Amino acid sequence: MTIELQSPLDMHVHFRQDAMLRNVAPLTAKHFAGAVVMPNLVSPIDSLERLLWYTDQVKQATEGELFDPYMTLFFRDYTREELVAAKPQIIGIKLYPAGATTNSDRGVSQIHTMFGVLALMEELDIPLLVHGESNGFVMDREKEFQVVYREIASTFPKLRIVMEHITTAEAIGLLDEYSNLYATVTPHHLLLTLDDVVGGLMDPHLFCKPIAKRPEDRQALLTAALNAHPKLMHGSDSAPHPITSKECPGCAAGIFTAPIILSLLAELFEKHNALDKLQSFVSNNAVRIYRLSPPPKTVVLTKSPMVIPANYHGVVPMWAGKTLPWSIADFG
Amino acid sequence: MTIELQSPLDMHVHFRQDAMLRNVAPLTAKHFAGAVVMPNLVSPIDSLERLLWYTDQVKQATEGELFDPYMTLFFRDYTREELVAAKPQIIGIKLYPAGATTNSDRGVSQIHTMFGVLALMEELDIPLLVHGESNGFVMDREKEFQVVYREIASTFPKLRIVMEHITTAEAIGLLDEYSNLYATVTPHHLLLTLDDVVGGLMDPHLFCKPIAKRPEDRQALLTAALNAHPKLMHGSDSAPHPITSKECPGCAAGIFTAPIILSLLAELFEKHNALDKLQSFVSNNAVRIYRLSPPPKTVVLTKSPMVIPANYHGVVPMWAGKTLPWSIADFG
Repeated sequence: MTIELQSPLDMHVHFRQDAMLRNVAPLTAKHFAGAVVMPNLVSPIDSLERLLWYTDQVKQATEGELFDPYMTLFFRDYTREELVAAKPQIIGIKLYPAGATTNSDRGVSQIHTMFGVLALMEELDIPLLVHGESNGFVMDREKEFQVVYREIASTFPKLRIVMEHITTAEAIGLLDEYSNLYATVTPHHLLLTLDDVVGGLMDPHLFCKPIAKRPEDRQALLTAALNAHPKLMHGSDSAPHPITSKECPGCAAGIFTAPIILSLLAELFEKHNALDKLQSFVSNNAVRIYRLSPPPKTVVLTKSPMVIPANYHGVVPMWAGKTLPWSIADFG
Repeated sequence: MTIELQSPLDMHVHFRQDAMLRNVAPLTAKHFAGAVVMPNLVSPIDSLERLLWYTDQVKQATEGELFDPYMTLFFRDYTREELVAAKPQIIGIKLYPAGATTNSDRGVSQIHTMFGVLALMEELDIPLLVHGESNGFVMDREKEFQVVYREIASTFPKLRIVMEHITTAEAIGLLDEYSNLYATVTPHHLLLTLDDVVGGLMDPHLFCKPIAKRPEDRQALLTAALNAHPKLMHGSDSAPHPITSKECPGCAAGIFTAPIILSLLAELFEKHNALDKLQSFVSNNAVRIYRLSPPPKTVVLTKSPMVIPANYHGVVPMWAGKTLPWSIADFG
């Protein structure tokens, strides 16, 4: 028994840089035809020069694979000239509200101060990707950020806005309210709730931002994904940290899933009799929303068990040691 | 500047056994005139024989201090004869709903099956101490358990019931509804919300059961404590785990506060201009509710900074490395 996926895409991934980049990027490039690469390095990718440097780094790390990196810039007060020059090199610009996620201390805190750039992005048709969390109580941050999504979506009706890694039923509701709002959702938010993070023993390897929410939130996300909601895309938010940054007093936020994403999704969609929707969720929706032409790449999953390794180059994946029923077959 | 406390009490503490007992019990015995010792060892204290053994262990570990251990039994289907024999040796019986907290797998799961024992406890005037959490979603467990408190409190109106380590505004509300319901609250639940656990970096040393809740919950607990609500007692739930069980993939629940409790409370009550209520919160309320005669022991805090040590015998305390303004003075 096999599942064939055509040009699967990961519309939100963290590759980091240097040795980590060289270790993790090939794992994504092997399984996916393309991926949206986040710009939040310790020193963010916020200039054409740094963008070209990082693009080159990513291409070197994924050399030999049929794989398109879709690069992003870190939001700041760009000029029109900068945006025009960057546009051919990027899929969009990533906005981090100040302080809400890893390496986003330089993110913006005031939404109105960004309207100039947003107007230019709308005019130039550059998508806006948003980490949509307020600085409020951890379980309320995404909900509280809705007011910002509403304001941007209605002020810039032609700006394509992607709510990244949504975690709440409310965010699914927003998709249907504004035609220019889209979203990515991670496999782990389809599988986890806060109970998995702190409900039994505390698991640092299931700790991420935004944090996994309530059962009813997970259900809303899952229902939308299993029905291949046309405005919802797969974006793993796979976020590697060395084990020493996870199993420690100040555990970094991020779940590493890159090498097991398609196995996780195959099991989940099969369990819910929705395998016929998997192609749209992992590729077609993103191709349509972003108007992409990913390299033609057939990825085959076979129903043979895989044991999730304890770590990949010192990065512990989600559910290390667990057995998944679907594996990625070798492919040419 | 000093604060003098008369016979401060910790109405909920975990001493464990063996080396851990010998390491942590003296830290409590030094600062407190008495403490309610939890019975959830790996093999619970659920017989008179084990109770006498454990009492002896605790007394050995705290020898030389002016300190009364108030012992508890682990709830099970005791006979009248067992209860009559145990009564002089215990302050109450601790009920753990099945599976909700450390070493409580042997706790009960059906409340009605316990009515026989509860009736005997009411008749014999043995207090019931409860870890009140359902097996539901982690943020809802205490709220969902209210129905059990209501049923027990109304069915056994003369049974003194202590809701242990309450964490929600709803639990404070219950105190005023039933005359036979009392509660303990921990210093850490007066200080923390879920934000401190997983809102920034994840902190295993602030992970406990019940988990810290929402800001409005903390505010309700704090208001009641600062006003020395007459049915609310200090119970630290200080719960030591070796560092290897905390900074790891399956982090055990428990915050270790024993050596810093009074410093934490002094700072908190001073900040809110409620130092005049501290004596009632840390001693008088418990003396009245439990009808205790703790040994006369004056504990003096001085306003001289203490840096919280990195660990005590390999157990990391809450807020290790932080400086607190109040220290315990030496006393005779």
